[in-house]
Amino acid sequence: MSDFDVKDARKTFVGPGFVLADVDPASTPGLKGGKNKVAEENSEIDAQLYELQQKLYANHRSGIKVGNVLLVLQGMDTSGKGGIIKHSVGVLDPQGVKLASFGVPTDEEKAHDFLWRIRKQLPDNGMVGVFDRSHYEDVLIHRVEGWANEQVLTERYEAIRQFEKELVAGGTKIIKVMLHISKQFQKDNLLERLENPAKYWKYNPGDLDTRSKWDAYQEAYQIALTETSTEDAPWYCIPSDNKQYARMAVKYLLLGALEDMNLSWPPADFDVEEQKAKLEAMD
Amino acid sequence: MSDFDVKDARKTFVGPGFVLADVDPASTPGLKGGKNKVAEENSEIDAQLYELQQKLYANHRSGIKVGNVLLVLQGMDTSGKGGIIKHSVGVLDPQGVKLASFGVPTDEEKAHDFLWRIRKQLPDNGMVGVFDRSHYEDVLIHRVEGWANEQVLTERYEAIRQFEKELVAGGTKIIKVMLHISKQFQKDNLLERLENPAKYWKYNPGDLDTRSKWDAYQEAYQIALTETSTEDAPWYCIPSDNKQYARMAVKYLLLGALEDMNLSWPPADFDVEEQKAKLEAMD
Repeated sequence: MSDFDVKDARKTFVGPGFVLADVDPASTPGLKGGKNKVAEENSEIDAQLYELQQKLYANHRSGIKVGNVLLVLQGMDTSGKGGIIKHSVGVLDPQGVKLASFGVPTDEEKAHDFLWRIRKQLPDNGMVGVFDRSHYEDVLIHRVEGWANEQVLTERYEAIRQFEKELVAGGTKIIKVMLHISKQFQKDNLLERLENPAKYWKYNPGDLDTRSKWDAYQEAYQIALTETSTEDAPWYCIPSDNKQYARMAVKYLLLGALEDMNLSWPPADFDVEEQKAKLEAMD
Repeated sequence: MSDFDVKDARKTFVGPGFVLADVDPASTPGLKGGKNKVAEENSEIDAQLYELQQKLYANHRSGIKVGNVLLVLQGMDTSGKGGIIKHSVGVLDPQGVKLASFGVPTDEEKAHDFLWRIRKQLPDNGMVGVFDRSHYEDVLIHRVEGWANEQVLTERYEAIRQFEKELVAGGTKIIKVMLHISKQFQKDNLLERLENPAKYWKYNPGDLDTRSKWDAYQEAYQIALTETSTEDAPWYCIPSDNKQYARMAVKYLLLGALEDMNLSWPPADFDVEEQKAKLEAMD
């Protein structure tokens, strides 16, 4: 009897005609009732998520090809990517999670195609991969800063579509999430970081430069999302001024991906009764 | 007003005169009151652990050299290593955790010194490394199976002591944990795996072969622990027939290591008031 479910989380899907500017970052699509409802059902969904991911990981461990999950997280500074990793991904079994964070590329990474460093961090069969930022940086900051011209950007959108199509064909369930916050929400968060010495480390003076290009980033997201959101490699634009809502929505997206995999527990590759008898006979 | 603390967890330290056979796997050293007491205080300790690890991770992110933590987990099959990773390590921020699992070495790994693959998985500054099995396999299974003779084993103990001394000198807090279970507890757990199709994947017929060498393994642990437990790179022998107790004890050991680091939040490397003024002036 949840107030929210997988279907509701998927309402944030970026489909034809999507207009980022029309999405209210403070809204909570699909959620019935007030804000307090968000946290209540967590233990139930956490248990479901954990169970399904255990099933996935069991297949990883057993070497049975069942595919994997890749969660891509993008968003402006302070949009809550870290919180999603702690609170949504954090309910999974760490052994089955492969986390990768993509910062400023190294010289070696720059010497290669922009997907090179991404490919190296793809999750194995039966694992849940989580990208904290991703190959989308190459069509977001690169567009805003003019590091890539229109032609190169056009090629990159196509390269991304092909890349993700290839992943999907290989058995990956891709969930791409834009944590969509308002400009005021970011201001409040940045101020909080400047007012609390325990948060100075999260602040970088460069954040203000990025903030000054807010509209250009929104445009870059608008284009990137519409260019690369497909049924198979969907983007979800999740309103994230309400952190609890965003965390729950991501949990439900993960749950939906795992449910779609129709996972089974790996069968015994040994004679169960024989093993039981052997064990019983031992001291 | 906890019923257990860091000091109590450290009572499981493997010191001079340690005799593994004298440790009751069902005991709960340091714990006052009944078994129910174990779970109650979790949210308090979880919050403390998380806060301190955030401080550690903040220094990682800020590039400030503060050292790191390395938790080494060893134990017989079904001793609960996975549960420790989920329930004890799982309360930390996944972004600050580097998990490494050491199974049967690959051909490439076998071609190198036994510490080669271990060195590649050491945590960076400001991170918490967790080893699910470790370099100790090379003095445990290798001793039991006779893959290494006494001379080689003696060399390996020395190599391990030197290696860990070097890590400690480099700023690593090492916590080595043996999850100590009884033979009956393992039998119950293995039977449970054979009775529940959702647990077949955790079972391997080879587990019975290993079980048949129980005493030899206990001896190998006795020797390995006493050869390599020092104040700086301590072994803790944690009775683990009570899973909740073992998980809590590991949490307190992690907490103790983090407390010993006397961590501070990284100072601002920018002018806070100037940044505030700039931000306030922006729309």
